[in-house]
Amino acid sequence: MSNSFGERYRFTIFGQSHAPAIGVTIEGLPSGFAPDMDALAAFLARRAPGGGPFGTPRKEADAPEFISGLVDGHTCGAPVTALIRNTNTRSGDYDELRRVPRPGHADFAAFMKYGGARDVAGGGQFSGRLTAPLCIAGGLALQLLAKEGVTVRAKIVSIGGETEPAAMQAAMAAAKEAGDSVGGIIQCVCEGVPAGLGEPMFGGMENRIAQAVFGIPAVKGVEFGAGFAVGAMRGSDNNDPFYYDETGAVRTRTNNHGGILGGITSGMPVVFRAAFKPTPSIALEQDSVDLVSHENVKLAVRGRHDACIVLRAVPCVEAAAAAAIYDALLESRGI
Amino acid sequence: MSNSFGERYRFTIFGQSHAPAIGVTIEGLPSGFAPDMDALAAFLARRAPGGGPFGTPRKEADAPEFISGLVDGHTCGAPVTALIRNTNTRSGDYDELRRVPRPGHADFAAFMKYGGARDVAGGGQFSGRLTAPLCIAGGLALQLLAKEGVTVRAKIVSIGGETEPAAMQAAMAAAKEAGDSVGGIIQCVCEGVPAGLGEPMFGGMENRIAQAVFGIPAVKGVEFGAGFAVGAMRGSDNNDPFYYDETGAVRTRTNNHGGILGGITSGMPVVFRAAFKPTPSIALEQDSVDLVSHENVKLAVRGRHDACIVLRAVPCVEAAAAAAIYDALLESRGI
Amino acid sequence: MSNSFGERYRFTIFGQSHAPAIGVTIEGLPSGFAPDMDALAAFLARRAPGGGPFGTPRKEADAPEFISGLVDGHTCGAPVTALIRNTNTRSGDYDELRRVPRPGHADFAAFMKYGGARDVAGGGQFSGRLTAPLCIAGGLALQLLAKEGVTVRAKIVSIGGETEPAAMQAAMAAAKEAGDSVGGIIQCVCEGVPAGLGEPMFGGMENRIAQAVFGIPAVKGVEFGAGFAVGAMRGSDNNDPFYYDETGAVRTRTNNHGGILGGITSGMPVVFRAAFKPTPSIALEQDSVDLVSHENVKLAVRGRHDACIVLRAVPCVEAAAAAAIYDALLESRGI
Amino acid sequence: MSNSFGERYRFTIFGQSHAPAIGVTIEGLPSGFAPDMDALAAFLARRAPGGGPFGTPRKEADAPEFISGLVDGHTCGAPVTALIRNTNTRSGDYDELRRVPRPGHADFAAFMKYGGARDVAGGGQFSGRLTAPLCIAGGLALQLLAKEGVTVRAKIVSIGGETEPAAMQAAMAAAKEAGDSVGGIIQCVCEGVPAGLGEPMFGGMENRIAQAVFGIPAVKGVEFGAGFAVGAMRGSDNNDPFYYDETGAVRTRTNNHGGILGGITSGMPVVFRAAFKPTPSIALEQDSVDLVSHENVKLAVRGRHDACIVLRAVPCVEAAAAAAIYDALLESRGI
Repeated sequence: MSNSFGERYRFTIFGQSHAPAIGVTIEGLPSGFAPDMDALAAFLARRAPGGGPFGTPRKEADAPEFISGLVDGHTCGAPVTALIRNTNTRSGDYDELRRVPRPGHADFAAFMKYGGARDVAGGGQFSGRLTAPLCIAGGLALQLLAKEGVTVRAKIVSIGGETEPAAMQAAMAAAKEAGDSVGGIIQCVCEGVPAGLGEPMFGGMENRIAQAVFGIPAVKGVEFGAGFAVGAMRGSDNNDPFYYDETGAVRTRTNNHGGILGGITSGMPVVFRAAFKPTPSIALEQDSVDLVSHENVKLAVRGRHDACIVLRAVPCVEAAAAAAIYDALLESRGI
Repeated sequence: MSNSFGERYRFTIFGQSHAPAIGVTIEGLPSGFAPDMDALAAFLARRAPGGGPFGTPRKEADAPEFISGLVDGHTCGAPVTALIRNTNTRSGDYDELRRVPRPGHADFAAFMKYGGARDVAGGGQFSGRLTAPLCIAGGLALQLLAKEGVTVRAKIVSIGGETEPAAMQAAMAAAKEAGDSVGGIIQCVCEGVPAGLGEPMFGGMENRIAQAVFGIPAVKGVEFGAGFAVGAMRGSDNNDPFYYDETGAVRTRTNNHGGILGGITSGMPVVFRAAFKPTPSIALEQDSVDLVSHENVKLAVRGRHDACIVLRAVPCVEAAAAAAIYDALLESRGI
Repeated sequence: MSNSFGERYRFTIFGQSHAPAIGVTIEGLPSGFAPDMDALAAFLARRAPGGGPFGTPRKEADAPEFISGLVDGHTCGAPVTALIRNTNTRSGDYDELRRVPRPGHADFAAFMKYGGARDVAGGGQFSGRLTAPLCIAGGLALQLLAKEGVTVRAKIVSIGGETEPAAMQAAMAAAKEAGDSVGGIIQCVCEGVPAGLGEPMFGGMENRIAQAVFGIPAVKGVEFGAGFAVGAMRGSDNNDPFYYDETGAVRTRTNNHGGILGGITSGMPVVFRAAFKPTPSIALEQDSVDLVSHENVKLAVRGRHDACIVLRAVPCVEAAAAAAIYDALLESRGI
Repeated sequence: MSNSFGERYRFTIFGQSHAPAIGVTIEGLPSGFAPDMDALAAFLARRAPGGGPFGTPRKEADAPEFISGLVDGHTCGAPVTALIRNTNTRSGDYDELRRVPRPGHADFAAFMKYGGARDVAGGGQFSGRLTAPLCIAGGLALQLLAKEGVTVRAKIVSIGGETEPAAMQAAMAAAKEAGDSVGGIIQCVCEGVPAGLGEPMFGGMENRIAQAVFGIPAVKGVEFGAGFAVGAMRGSDNNDPFYYDETGAVRTRTNNHGGILGGITSGMPVVFRAAFKPTPSIALEQDSVDLVSHENVKLAVRGRHDACIVLRAVPCVEAAAAAAIYDALLESRGI
């Protein structure tokens, strides 16, 4: 089902932006594992709102409460469920959105799927807030991967088309000043991933990482290694030559394949990029429709919103990648 | 498992390039459906080898034999299995590849996963030949979608970085002449897709289409709507304004969202692009390793190969998209 | 994964007996559905502890808190999560059980699977208490089935081998008096189930109902229609003759097939029975082992336990059946 | 989907009784495994028709053709597909059955599900013949389990209510003489199963074995250990006392739990029984309906049928159990 990811490390996310709580149930954690709760809190803090000038001013502790699966701080083998209470909700901001869908947002699609019963407050189940439970599941996967020598690190490579830090800051400032928003691209590098993870065809690592990463709101593209640039390349440029390194391991001199060949990891770093669209909620007036009066109308979104979601999305990308890789790692042990 | 795709329209692909046969088992076809076998043959012919100057000269009829699920040409409710016999195999071409993995190919990853028992002949289970059964499953989905008013059409938008037909031809000719290969980008447009298909988070249409499309060998990137370009856009540019058209339907003036919002179809055309790397098998000498002698060696791939796989990949992209959309369509009826 | 059931109506149960909470996340509820919370509470009350002379004296309100998926009492399309807090825990009762597994209980198997980290308090994740979230998921399915004209009613048909109410009471009283426990058999009848639900082979209704019902702790057998008695029958006795009834519907004169033929519902009532073993926790001294000292030891289980779990299991059987049938009903709409 | 079983050792069965072929695709076989084809043929021969006085006289070699997944007799990591051609079909026998469903058979349910397009010849996809591919998948699992020291052996414990060999033979002879059929019960004992396999709740070994075994046509009940008898027992009788044996292993003195506690294997033999109804196809005249004329009619089934399917079902039960156990064994390695 749609709110679950993974086969061996499997988690199910629940909640809406303004429901009493959001959370996640995780199956597949080894028993006897003691999560580093401080490290998890630090990881969650990287995506928390209120962290800077370009994020929403909504402030929430986002401290997860573990309600099952732990005994004296150690996993006991039962599924682990963690909750985050939604304490700072302002449903009143969103009444107009029940009638008038925001361009670029899931509002309209949700109306077509769920009808009038859909939860519009704060984006409901489509809110970026649901990436907090993703980060809990992914954050624990990161800790388990670290024990195996695998690291997963994402970074912003461009915002608003700019690739230099100063220019990226300027692009965000200009968008915010204009009541607008701006998109960006995040790159993720996973080192220490053993060769042989993933499966051919639909169970390949590209398939799985893409399935996880497209679960983050606002992602419109995912590419691996040289990515879309391969379309302009020749085989002699794109093929990564093999060689034996000094340790006797097979490596490639370049990494256009992004650590994945035939869906299976090669032992080289897994590298991918995700494109994030600009936050659809902007203060500028936009054309929309009134779903009740059936008229074309103008809309200016009020409320608290990020001028650039990309900043907070970095740990979400790491979380998605870590979950997919750890799931494949567990799977590889059953072969 | 890795060789299966879909939940409600589910198919499982089997076979290797030089096994006795390749094929597919399809579950979820409605009973009483009479596949148009001529239309299916024509669809399969679009990906068949031997069709042009830039493809492999290997010629095979690729006529599927339906061994179960049909009675007097109609589906009976049982799973449908179709086989394609591999009649024109030349295993002798591939002996060196058991020792020396081709750069850019799945050879090495397969060795790390399956060891010496892997099937190296013709690429084994990683061969592009396995897209033939994908096209059977997708081709039947296309016929069923057509009954619902949904069309799926893919086309090449660039080869070797060139976007004009003449320049694309020249790029392929130059690559072939050089004993090299060249990549490209395919765009797919799905019209008539009803609003409301797909699910939030990991069951979104982007997630599913990406999972299907990354199942085609050589795909290194998938993007929807404006795709990676969103990273350089502002919300006011990227957001697609809503309006009521003359029929009273809600439409968007632009389609940067590629017909998918929050993972759910909006009723606008679903549009995506896939990047195909150049065929890794090239005649030019490359650096590789000998997995037996543990030495760095030179490799020049002999045998029959495509200078540009992109030509034959077009129906594969349509097949992958059709399978994902038809699966979601069946799913939507159960809600 | 093990804590989830269903494909279209899918729920995931979490929690342990003495964790902060137990609960369930349900996917597949239609949007706009207003659960009858009073009816649900009444249904849950049928399995709640503290209800009679033969149950555990542990009293808990077991009132579910819905933390997501509802807006103003109606489902919004997002997964529905309900929690039950564990307020009346007495972990101190269970210290000995960490060393000495109770015969007939999951203790030893849990030790072999999860090691020392397992949760032994109150049976951990193996506790019968986890049937409360099952009853939430199943209770909502029952409400949705009722709208379709489907009713699911279970009843006790024997306890301790006795089939008359007075004798069943006496069997329970005698067992309790002896510090012992006693098993029983529950029969479930599902009326109004439309013909054509379920699938051949591994997706049959027998397979699915069995998968659900064996998820209730203590079930050691499941049989449909005439059940194990078919082994002693001839075809001419067991075959249920067809006839057209006065409404023009095809019926069978007998129902040895229990409403399921070839895995698919026939339109006759679905009838099955489940055998419940006696509660393994008894006050009588038993032989066991000390997993720390590696000695054979004697064990007398202290604490609060049911003399006969069968009484409280009746709604659990209804819940399991309802979930399986509603799941199949949703599935049938996608064909 | 319904024709697939398993998560880690997963197979998909296809075909109908009188389709060109039946077969199975198996995912999860380790690479480099050389199936013992003679042993497999001997295993399949145990369920083949034509083997004795009480089976159908239809004779087929049932020799599987492996069309993918093997290279030089060894698994290569790709899915393994095996076919059995249906060479000895007599479709003419079954024309009446299109109008008149056989009591006790899947005919009527298939009509309600698939309508007029269903395959009635030889029972279509509901035929017992589909247990041949089950036996291929299970037979390979048996070979792999044997390498792990696990044996799976089933035997008939009663036919027609008789438990002694001579009386069972007499019951079958009498049924055959009368143009009737007779049911029976098969018990399966799995030795050497390591402790710790399976998962709590819906992923328990009872749930999985039941899901597999109910996939065999004619099974109407499955029970583990003491089974339905537990309903009449007290805890002090049913609980199996633990002790340390001379090797230092924990064992139980009795095995009422059938090797499964809380869904998880205990290390004791896994023991279960399955009840098989008598073959519904009998020569005696029965009441049925004409689905075209909508009249009540009489039916006497012609053609080749087993007087007692139980004889041939023994290897099928072993196959189902082996598949479920090997799947769980693979799963346990990923934890």
